[in-house]
Amino acid sequence: MKRSQLFTRTSKTAPADETSRNAALLIRAGFIHKEMAGVYTYLPLGLRVLENIKQIVREEMNAVGGQEVMMTALQPQELFQKTNRWDDAVVDNWFKTKLKNGTELGLGLTHEEPITNILLENVSSYKNLPVLVYQIQNKFRNEKRAKSGLMRGREFVMKDMYSFAKSQANHDEIYEKVAAAYTKVYARLGLGNTTFRTKADGGYFTEKNSDEYQTLCEAGEDTLFHVPGTDLWYNEEIAPALAPKIEQSETEKPLEVKKTDGAVGVAALVKLLGIPAEMTTKTMIYQTNSGEIIAAATRGDHDINEPKLRKVLGVEGLKLADKSIIQTVFGADTGCAGLINLPDNVRVIIDESCMDRVNFETGNNKTGEHVINVNWGRDVAIPEQFYDIKTAIPGDIHPESGLVYEVHKGSEVGNIFPLESKYSDALGMFYLDANGQQQPVIMGCYGIGISRLMGVLAEKFSDDAGLNWPKAIAPFQVYLINIGDDESVIKRAETLYNQLQDKGIEVLWDDRDARPGEKLADADLFGIPYRVVISPKTGELSEVKRRGDKAEASLLTIDALFDSIYHN
Amino acid sequence: MKRSQLFTRTSKTAPADETSRNAALLIRAGFIHKEMAGVYTYLPLGLRVLENIKQIVREEMNAVGGQEVMMTALQPQELFQKTNRWDDAVVDNWFKTKLKNGTELGLGLTHEEPITNILLENVSSYKNLPVLVYQIQNKFRNEKRAKSGLMRGREFVMKDMYSFAKSQANHDEIYEKVAAAYTKVYARLGLGNTTFRTKADGGYFTEKNSDEYQTLCEAGEDTLFHVPGTDLWYNEEIAPALAPKIEQSETEKPLEVKKTDGAVGVAALVKLLGIPAEMTTKTMIYQTNSGEIIAAATRGDHDINEPKLRKVLGVEGLKLADKSIIQTVFGADTGCAGLINLPDNVRVIIDESCMDRVNFETGNNKTGEHVINVNWGRDVAIPEQFYDIKTAIPGDIHPESGLVYEVHKGSEVGNIFPLESKYSDALGMFYLDANGQQQPVIMGCYGIGISRLMGVLAEKFSDDAGLNWPKAIAPFQVYLINIGDDESVIKRAETLYNQLQDKGIEVLWDDRDARPGEKLADADLFGIPYRVVISPKTGELSEVKRRGDKAEASLLTIDALFDSIYHN
Repeated sequence: MKRSQLFTRTSKTAPADETSRNAALLIRAGFIHKEMAGVYTYLPLGLRVLENIKQIVREEMNAVGGQEVMMTALQPQELFQKTNRWDDAVVDNWFKTKLKNGTELGLGLTHEEPITNILLENVSSYKNLPVLVYQIQNKFRNEKRAKSGLMRGREFVMKDMYSFAKSQANHDEIYEKVAAAYTKVYARLGLGNTTFRTKADGGYFTEKNSDEYQTLCEAGEDTLFHVPGTDLWYNEEIAPALAPKIEQSETEKPLEVKKTDGAVGVAALVKLLGIPAEMTTKTMIYQTNSGEIIAAATRGDHDINEPKLRKVLGVEGLKLADKSIIQTVFGADTGCAGLINLPDNVRVIIDESCMDRVNFETGNNKTGEHVINVNWGRDVAIPEQFYDIKTAIPGDIHPESGLVYEVHKGSEVGNIFPLESKYSDALGMFYLDANGQQQPVIMGCYGIGISRLMGVLAEKFSDDAGLNWPKAIAPFQVYLINIGDDESVIKRAETLYNQLQDKGIEVLWDDRDARPGEKLADADLFGIPYRVVISPKTGELSEVKRRGDKAEASLLTIDALFDSIYHN
Repeated sequence: MKRSQLFTRTSKTAPADETSRNAALLIRAGFIHKEMAGVYTYLPLGLRVLENIKQIVREEMNAVGGQEVMMTALQPQELFQKTNRWDDAVVDNWFKTKLKNGTELGLGLTHEEPITNILLENVSSYKNLPVLVYQIQNKFRNEKRAKSGLMRGREFVMKDMYSFAKSQANHDEIYEKVAAAYTKVYARLGLGNTTFRTKADGGYFTEKNSDEYQTLCEAGEDTLFHVPGTDLWYNEEIAPALAPKIEQSETEKPLEVKKTDGAVGVAALVKLLGIPAEMTTKTMIYQTNSGEIIAAATRGDHDINEPKLRKVLGVEGLKLADKSIIQTVFGADTGCAGLINLPDNVRVIIDESCMDRVNFETGNNKTGEHVINVNWGRDVAIPEQFYDIKTAIPGDIHPESGLVYEVHKGSEVGNIFPLESKYSDALGMFYLDANGQQQPVIMGCYGIGISRLMGVLAEKFSDDAGLNWPKAIAPFQVYLINIGDDESVIKRAETLYNQLQDKGIEVLWDDRDARPGEKLADADLFGIPYRVVISPKTGELSEVKRRGDKAEASLLTIDALFDSIYHN
């Protein structure tokens, strides 16, 4: 393609309202256009990158037997009511709209329900299973804030595959086969060395953990806990953790009640009482969906992790207790909850980080009062069991190995979920086995955010001069520049342009009547792997530079140029 | 692909709620799944057809210099307010939704506004023009009823191209270049002989006429008026028409007032008064947006055509007058409007079909009264000019040629619009010419409903046994069947399956353990061009049948089979 025919222009500055590096760069380079936060149009160069990513993902999904379909954005509410995912109180990022007759519809944010509904009409026997189906298309999520450019869109391109298996064993086999396909995808995208399979929470998809694929990325929204020297990676939200022990040799002192009016939170208590955060105790009061009141305590330098607490309690619904309930149960305001003076009808769950402390602090469960020099056994009964109900922080220890975690920023570039028979049961999908017996269908789902991936790639493969795409997804392989409008230069550039195209090499020829500096800057900004310059000085050769290489450009013959493109 | 790996199943019957032939067939064959009226999921075979159609359209748009982009479904209201297309009173088929902060968004039903907004940021000089940009993606229209399957969707796949030109002459050249590309698209899709460029109303896109591409199709929603022996085709909505003259030799009779209480409409008057419809006069009372009251009259066997009337009047807004206005102006109820006793402040526009009649009927503009034996000059002043303000009906005459129209049913498979500078002006897009003078940008838009085309193709290329796709868009070229599970048959089928694939011929092998009749019926239902059977009887040959051919199947060698596929 000739640059003079490309309608987009580049810009030296990014729009003021674009805070993400990936979108700012892609907008400057004319790859995308921002319609509103989290909603971007793909311009010709951006669409080429997006389609290249799609194609790699498509090939790997086909290779494991995936069958491609295209589902709809408009979704009827009935299917999602069956799985309790229609209500905005349960799934809070629906976009909803209405038919002329007033019927409310949703814009597809995920498609487990409709695909299961389709499959149940097509699959009835063990002979039809397993099935893998996938879609690559736009999805919609009504995010409150969308500030990460392509990395968190309100309208975004997603590949989702769904698997339907005969048994848990059959499912497990498929799940690992797809996991292997994911590894291939990231390797082909140039992310092989920086992307890790990471255990994560199942979110609203499953009670089980899911597996995320996390790419190390400073702009990432996730914090990853890695057990050094192993392939064990955990998302912060579920990383099992032991807090490092506190060095202490004190003897027990007498219990002392402190008036702490106005001091709310660990930082304020630390300041007021002059003790380290590790000696404070953070106690949160929760209520479960069955009405039980829970006091959950952790060492003050950590936070309570609600998913962990929920699993310990074995409950589905859990929320911070209303102020009025705390008043009724404790006869006290919030902010002074603790392990002392707990009413009998409150169940106590204490994190392991609270063990082995001498003379620690806790709330007194009386308005404006905390106590210090609290000790196990003497002041507070030692519980039958301590739990891990805290969110891991740097310095924490992986329990099984005893190793201190390494902590990284990551961006999720894929997520696979074991769904068991949650959706198939809810939608009434079963199959008949060889004996004519009705059996549950075991499902999995496997997502890759295509547009998010493009954002992560732009974050990782870029520098001060602009983008630097891996060859597999670059919009063109060669950015050809003629310097000057000397007739022989133009003629040589045109010849090379045709030769490259004849060889099937995608080339963008900057044939504009523009300053050399402008052309060179755009070549860098676009991030096309090879920059090839034809000037009065290059003679029969061309000056070739690999984007991002520190080395000087080389003068190459056409054959050496082809060789370089094919082999580097 | 092996049929045993395809998850979809076929059905002998269509769902009861699916009234359209195209969707019923496609659902039976497992190509699509209905989510709700006008909203369909594309299953693997259907998606292959859809992608084949897209690819043909994409290639022809690229060939005329189109640059592909992907715009967004979520659309901010500001852009559409600038062109007065946001208000539901103006554009009545928006789907609207809301961000969490309450901001109302629309789901893109057309994209002139956002693409112009993008172009105005990228194009400022005559050096940047012309530009052709296109998108192939889902659009949304909140249709009150959607009963035509893929031919009228609420969510549908659309190709839209937009052109931006320096001048009207520059635009005209592009417009005809794209029109030629459209002709190529329809020819490649097998619709070349049945698709005609047809003059149509510009709808809410332009004040000018548009050009529709209409494919002759019994299930079509449009009525086409063709001037025989020419390439002049008109959509009913704008076809210029002369009504055939009435044979009459009567002499003028005395005017006579008739009480017609309760007789409303032409049919009732014809019955009550015993006169032919051609002798009645249909008079409709309108009000314009500037408040003028219009009486528009046509011969009773025709209807008033509002777009034609609007053009005669040169007004933008026109609607039937409210009952209260008719009461005030005429002092009479609706239903008795006519050419007699018209108040002075009513402007009269009379269709040419009313000329040259003797002793005709009209309303008396008094409640419950009509008059018969009305005559020009004597009872009603002859207007300075008669107009063509009627909708054409079969039997009408094309004014310029004097030929009687041929009338056909058609389905719109494309639509191209000259937009002048309506959208560019409204959005503030201009360019600087070589003299630095600001100039308007002349736009055009060019639509092809990709999913609608698939529906039309399914309507046209099908018979009682099922679908019959043109080769260019068939999901596979060969439907291979092994009859029986004899080891040598399976082996021969497998060899042929591999040989076809090695030659790049897409083949679906029905390897199921199913009755021969079932396999043969599915081959027909799927509409794959070549059915190839391997059975114990075929020996080293294969039995080949072209879908839809009346002739018997032929026994061919592999080379003859390749030859047949490449050359037929």
